[in-house]
Amino acid sequence: MLLRISEPATSLVRHVRRHGPETTVADIRGGAPIPGVDVEALRQRLAGADGARDLERATTVGARLVCPGDEEWSPLLDDLARLDADAFGLWVRGPLELADACGQAVAVVGTRTATAYGEHVAAELATELGERGWTIVSGLAYGIDGAAHRAALAASAPTIGVLACGIDVPYPHGHRTLYERIAAEGAVVSEHPPGAAPQRHRFLVRNRIIAALSLGTVMVEAAARSGARSTLNHARDLLRHTMVVPGPVTSAMSQGCHVALREVLGSVLVTRAAEVIEQCGHLGELADSLSPPPRPRDTLGPLVRRVFEAVPVAKAAAPQRIAVTAGVRLEAVEPALAALRALGLVERTDDGWRMSKAGRDERHADGRPDRPLPLAWL
Amino acid sequence: MLLRISEPATSLVRHVRRHGPETTVADIRGGAPIPGVDVEALRQRLAGADGARDLERATTVGARLVCPGDEEWSPLLDDLARLDADAFGLWVRGPLELADACGQAVAVVGTRTATAYGEHVAAELATELGERGWTIVSGLAYGIDGAAHRAALAASAPTIGVLACGIDVPYPHGHRTLYERIAAEGAVVSEHPPGAAPQRHRFLVRNRIIAALSLGTVMVEAAARSGARSTLNHARDLLRHTMVVPGPVTSAMSQGCHVALREVLGSVLVTRAAEVIEQCGHLGELADSLSPPPRPRDTLGPLVRRVFEAVPVAKAAAPQRIAVTAGVRLEAVEPALAALRALGLVERTDDGWRMSKAGRDERHADGRPDRPLPLAWL
Repeated sequence: MLLRISEPATSLVRHVRRHGPETTVADIRGGAPIPGVDVEALRQRLAGADGARDLERATTVGARLVCPGDEEWSPLLDDLARLDADAFGLWVRGPLELADACGQAVAVVGTRTATAYGEHVAAELATELGERGWTIVSGLAYGIDGAAHRAALAASAPTIGVLACGIDVPYPHGHRTLYERIAAEGAVVSEHPPGAAPQRHRFLVRNRIIAALSLGTVMVEAAARSGARSTLNHARDLLRHTMVVPGPVTSAMSQGCHVALREVLGSVLVTRAAEVIEQCGHLGELADSLSPPPRPRDTLGPLVRRVFEAVPVAKAAAPQRIAVTAGVRLEAVEPALAALRALGLVERTDDGWRMSKAGRDERHADGRPDRPLPLAWL
Repeated sequence: MLLRISEPATSLVRHVRRHGPETTVADIRGGAPIPGVDVEALRQRLAGADGARDLERATTVGARLVCPGDEEWSPLLDDLARLDADAFGLWVRGPLELADACGQAVAVVGTRTATAYGEHVAAELATELGERGWTIVSGLAYGIDGAAHRAALAASAPTIGVLACGIDVPYPHGHRTLYERIAAEGAVVSEHPPGAAPQRHRFLVRNRIIAALSLGTVMVEAAARSGARSTLNHARDLLRHTMVVPGPVTSAMSQGCHVALREVLGSVLVTRAAEVIEQCGHLGELADSLSPPPRPRDTLGPLVRRVFEAVPVAKAAAPQRIAVTAGVRLEAVEPALAALRALGLVERTDDGWRMSKAGRDERHADGRPDRPLPLAWL
């Protein structure tokens, strides 16, 4: 009954928390004052509410009601008390067991008007997270949400779609097939009564459920004014991980992401699934560093490296000349050259020493001057 | 003489700091031991060094030598003592007065193999910073450096190019014209003796001069292994501002930027010149927030907003119906509708209330459900 008459996330929650749902409904029916609540408005709604009919409607589409205390109720949802925005219950449709599925879940959210870049990144993240056993939570909207859900389904990974309308309302219309697939393979979730329309404020309160049902939220693309920001804020307030994917600073659809990275305390820049798991995963699941493996050059000590840099590319030079160029004493140059030859980086000719092919490749690698240095400069 | 014989940023600096340059040269000539320094190697170099000839060569290209204590010596350079990598002096060529020009300067650096995106962003930043009176410091390399210098010149803004070779060596060759333009309108700077070749290690020690000569460093694009990262690290160690421009996570040339944002403590994501100035500028120069101006909708209180959301788009509805949909008592709905009409967001028909054109536009703005809600759902 409460799910029917009261919009979620109102001051009513404190009363329910203290007195329980049955007493609360009785209080409303009797017109008893409740602090911060327009009891009269709820009473008017209550007149047309029919809990039994809601259950029947939900059952028709194969949905069940999951309430606090039920085995399928995730303790993660109890964190909503932090926001004074408890969920009284959730309608769930689909084979996924809710509590189980969100034990290792990440929310992937973003703008409905995503760019190809944003949809690509959302799909990549969801695919890889899904392949590594993570559940993808999102809002079934166009754009980023849809790309994330679809990729999860394609990877046969669990996915949860949280609706801002009734559990039996496939919204948006263009995502009816997606809604049906998630209902068949994952879980569709709603806290609104069957038949409820997707009103604006419901999108914002819905976002808190997305944030609550996951260990962290990744914002992939968002305009400066975007609902995804509210999900990120909820995640922060719920002490979940807040992660943001950057994009071109020239893209309006990454503007909200960059603002969030600058302004949302604790938000972490992520570029791939491994970094998301590093944030949300259990201790020790560190992302492999992107730093490339060491090169022969990196193993050289500073003196040998100086000598290496002083060896000419084309025309060989005598050790005396190399010593002066390198600023290293002659006595130290000979053993350094021998070491470099052992590594295959320099070669000896009749005229002295010069780079080998491998040495030139090393020198041309990133971080080098733009061209091989002409001998004349050495 | 020291500039000729010793590579910058060696342990020699501590000796120079304590005993002064003249004594140090005498010590080297005499073969006196200096901790951490290969005095014999320096002595061998000293044999071929000729300070007077260096000065003459520099004068030929119109360069001057600026040393600690000179009026043109920037106190910013003294911070290099923090790195135990003091500069002994700088060769300077160009009309800019060094100390003056770097009093309000930002370094804009990045990969030599920049993408069109990176060059575009570097140019935009340099143009806007230049127009607002900031000096652009960079390394005269291909890619990001060149784009930043060129944009500064185009904006008639001061720009400083720091070389990794002698002041008279226009390197890289393809930037000879750029080198000449900066020498004619800005300042080219080097701590190497005239004629010195651009050896690899010189690029890395050069980067500390770029970092020192500016109040902050902006990294625009960088591969995972990039010299720009060393400039950023030097900036951090010099207690300068470290700023990084994000890019597509799919771009290898933004990978180093994202790694830096994740790993370099204190690095700040920036997307435009105003944010750079907010970091480096004097107190109070805050970037205008990108948050858009408030809309009529944003000025509504929660109750009026709920009523607004419940007003049908097409077929008008009676206040009673709107009250039930909104979950607001009937007595509160009438004044809310009157207020909304005063704002031009709803209109009254013979059948009741519906959205006006302006109201529909508001409702279609970002953050809305994807389509106008069909009346049947309300």
